[in-house]
Amino acid sequence: MAQTLGAIAQFLQAELKGDADCIITGLATLSNAQSGQLSFLANMAYRDQLSTSQASAVIVHPKQASDVKGNALILSNPYLGYAKVSALFETLPAGSQTIHPSAVVSETAQIAESVSIGANAVIEDHAVLAKGAIIGAGSVVGVNSRVGKDSRIHQNVSIYHDVVIGENAIIHSGTVIGSDGFGFAQDKGEWVKIHQIGGVLIGNDVEIGANCAIDRGALSDTQIGNGVKLDNFIQIAHNVEIGEKTAIAAGSMVAGSTKIGRNCTLAGGVGVTGHLTLIDGVHVTAMSLVTKSISEPGSYSSGTAMSKTADWRRSAARFRQLDDLSKRLKSVEKSLQGSEQE
Amino acid sequence: MAQTLGAIAQFLQAELKGDADCIITGLATLSNAQSGQLSFLANMAYRDQLSTSQASAVIVHPKQASDVKGNALILSNPYLGYAKVSALFETLPAGSQTIHPSAVVSETAQIAESVSIGANAVIEDHAVLAKGAIIGAGSVVGVNSRVGKDSRIHQNVSIYHDVVIGENAIIHSGTVIGSDGFGFAQDKGEWVKIHQIGGVLIGNDVEIGANCAIDRGALSDTQIGNGVKLDNFIQIAHNVEIGEKTAIAAGSMVAGSTKIGRNCTLAGGVGVTGHLTLIDGVHVTAMSLVTKSISEPGSYSSGTAMSKTADWRRSAARFRQLDDLSKRLKSVEKSLQGSEQE
Amino acid sequence: MAQTLGAIAQFLQAELKGDADCIITGLATLSNAQSGQLSFLANMAYRDQLSTSQASAVIVHPKQASDVKGNALILSNPYLGYAKVSALFETLPAGSQTIHPSAVVSETAQIAESVSIGANAVIEDHAVLAKGAIIGAGSVVGVNSRVGKDSRIHQNVSIYHDVVIGENAIIHSGTVIGSDGFGFAQDKGEWVKIHQIGGVLIGNDVEIGANCAIDRGALSDTQIGNGVKLDNFIQIAHNVEIGEKTAIAAGSMVAGSTKIGRNCTLAGGVGVTGHLTLIDGVHVTAMSLVTKSISEPGSYSSGTAMSKTADWRRSAARFRQLDDLSKRLKSVEKSLQGSEQE
Repeated sequence: MAQTLGAIAQFLQAELKGDADCIITGLATLSNAQSGQLSFLANMAYRDQLSTSQASAVIVHPKQASDVKGNALILSNPYLGYAKVSALFETLPAGSQTIHPSAVVSETAQIAESVSIGANAVIEDHAVLAKGAIIGAGSVVGVNSRVGKDSRIHQNVSIYHDVVIGENAIIHSGTVIGSDGFGFAQDKGEWVKIHQIGGVLIGNDVEIGANCAIDRGALSDTQIGNGVKLDNFIQIAHNVEIGEKTAIAAGSMVAGSTKIGRNCTLAGGVGVTGHLTLIDGVHVTAMSLVTKSISEPGSYSSGTAMSKTADWRRSAARFRQLDDLSKRLKSVEKSLQGSEQE
Repeated sequence: MAQTLGAIAQFLQAELKGDADCIITGLATLSNAQSGQLSFLANMAYRDQLSTSQASAVIVHPKQASDVKGNALILSNPYLGYAKVSALFETLPAGSQTIHPSAVVSETAQIAESVSIGANAVIEDHAVLAKGAIIGAGSVVGVNSRVGKDSRIHQNVSIYHDVVIGENAIIHSGTVIGSDGFGFAQDKGEWVKIHQIGGVLIGNDVEIGANCAIDRGALSDTQIGNGVKLDNFIQIAHNVEIGEKTAIAAGSMVAGSTKIGRNCTLAGGVGVTGHLTLIDGVHVTAMSLVTKSISEPGSYSSGTAMSKTADWRRSAARFRQLDDLSKRLKSVEKSLQGSEQE
Repeated sequence: MAQTLGAIAQFLQAELKGDADCIITGLATLSNAQSGQLSFLANMAYRDQLSTSQASAVIVHPKQASDVKGNALILSNPYLGYAKVSALFETLPAGSQTIHPSAVVSETAQIAESVSIGANAVIEDHAVLAKGAIIGAGSVVGVNSRVGKDSRIHQNVSIYHDVVIGENAIIHSGTVIGSDGFGFAQDKGEWVKIHQIGGVLIGNDVEIGANCAIDRGALSDTQIGNGVKLDNFIQIAHNVEIGEKTAIAAGSMVAGSTKIGRNCTLAGGVGVTGHLTLIDGVHVTAMSLVTKSISEPGSYSSGTAMSKTADWRRSAARFRQLDDLSKRLKSVEKSLQGSEQE
């Protein structure tokens, strides 16, 4: 994967200061970089490391260009430069563009050219794999489901029937797409299953992390918009709709029929209850619970800040007395007002 | 899956108003329904949609029967009617009632008639699959484990040894049953594993969602009662017992040896610490943490309500001062009492 | 698995009181034990059960030795004794020490002697399985990844490329190791993927529960120290480092680049945000959120205590008014000071 610095500069459309022939063999942080590696300065907290880094070249903002003693790639957004150049050093094996003999592919499945199907993967009846799709070892693509062009499904992913995945998607291992939504009616104390007859519709350029679960819709489809990025352990319940480019960090859970807008971010461990609507541009901080619709963009939170457990216990005990405390304060205020009026 | 409305009325034992020969091809909500589809009115918030819905027929309560201009199926519980009729339009492929040639089935396993075993599934030694059981592609049924009559195990499910699953169960993809409980003793700063030699006992009519984990017991069995419904990402630790018909929403975690009663509901993201007992009929709201046994039925909560982050920060800072605040209020009250007594 | 009590005493180096020839066929709690079973008394709350237990022998502390009417194994740490003896009654089938014919093993993989590879497992190019390693049915070991001596990978585990797992590790089903960390840069409103080119380095004697996700590093490796014990549903983000012997209970999530020290414990459902450092010996209680680095050992918490929902609603409403409440109290105090100074 070695590249000359000149080639990388051209790839990034960056201004090169220094030796275009310098061979770059990898990427590293400023503090970890060794000779031959390219680094970057995106966070000014690490600015002092410029002088001590062993990196053979550094991607920097024009303002820091003069601080770099060796080779520099100068870009207005060094972090974006790092993101782009990371693709050149990807270690993930490319697809084989073959169907492994141990894979089980239905005769009725439609397999386009340049598709890779890993060992022991299963492609069920009438499934459609578009050109360049990669299906990892042990993954299952269910009846009638479709995987779009150049999408990569990693190992041991479970895709049920009637799931549509767009182009350039990445789905990580252990993720389940199209499992039944959680729906039951009560009949004299017995749970009666509501069969989940909708599907799942996933847009283009979506990434879904490891061990997620995206339930199929009860009647219509659960929908994940173009460019949505989901971390690991994300629960998307039936009939949820996630707007374009929204990003959700690990362990967040969205309950049934909730609609989340575009360009939202949910930090890790966030819960959103069912049948809500969150407008575009909403941000929710870690482990907050959203129980009402949000119609104004901005940042929202719930929970309490961390303390030593001993201190926390006292606060937690007082939390239960808050209503009483508030009423007693009101009474004190009245009493004072009375005495002042005397 | 097309059915006449008359046949559906008979299936539901509903009163039919309108055209018994009307062909129903699917189900949809009032607002999404198109000609040929059946809808229902269960939530009065959607009552206005009766007049504009394109549905060919609507399941309604007798009180709304006169509001339906077209065909109606009249039932005292329209939501239950919808649940029952959803079974007629299920899209999930039925079991093949065959063993896929790529499946690996131990010679010592007992496979009853009408069992379906999917591609690349693995049935280990002495496992027992009862009549009509369906094992999805890539799933593993471990040594000595049993899957009851008509139970369906979806794709890529992992069932360890000595797990018993009852009849009519549904287990979704990615779920793990019988993994080791988390138990260690300390020996001079080293963790010593407590081998988990109990099993898991799952009753009849249980549904378990995607990517759950039900640990085996340390000594005796972890137990899931008849009719229990678990959503996705449920953690059931070793030796937990869940009572009949209790329903648990996504992401809830029950720690070791806790007993949850019958007909309880845990909303999403609830935590229950270990060695507790929750009586029948307990309900816990989303993302609450239960740290004490509950001996009175009813609804329980913890956490705080959501605010804008800026406002929340102030509250969170004050939360840490709550004990001080409370003491200062007490002092003010005393001071006032003193001045009143003067 | 039957053993004489004498043999068990020798194995535990315990003092035996009673019949060395007594045949022990299993383990059970004092209340569940039947004739032939060995039990233990570790928690004094169960002391009364000594007199009624049907156990054929009991592991006890010297102080309780005289309370045991039948056979006793006397040890200073009965719980540790129970942990050790549990290994003798393990029900988990041993590895077959063979490669199942349905497994797919790359010609370039290095497979040591005494390795067991289960049905439909996949061992990719240049993977290395050390002596005694056991790979469960349906598991995948990715390109260049290594599984150390005597480590056991259960069923349907997904190991990506460039993952190193040490010796004597146990990895439970559904766990994913080496999935991409969640990293994106922004480019004019578009997410640009940061390719995750680091690996994962897991030490010796590590146990990882079911359905965990350990992401690969962005540049350098995500690291799990020797003797770390992770329960189910643990999220370890890219470049996290977990110190030796730290134990983390189910559902906890550690965000990117955070370093957790040695001998820490996180209870269930804990969240730790990114780029923090937690010193050795930190303990965090269930469902707490850690948002700041911790430089002092001890126990930390956040959240509120559980109440009846009706009571909780009042407290939660007042929580939002806390800043106002605090200011009003301040004002009352000033007013009182003023009147006292008059």
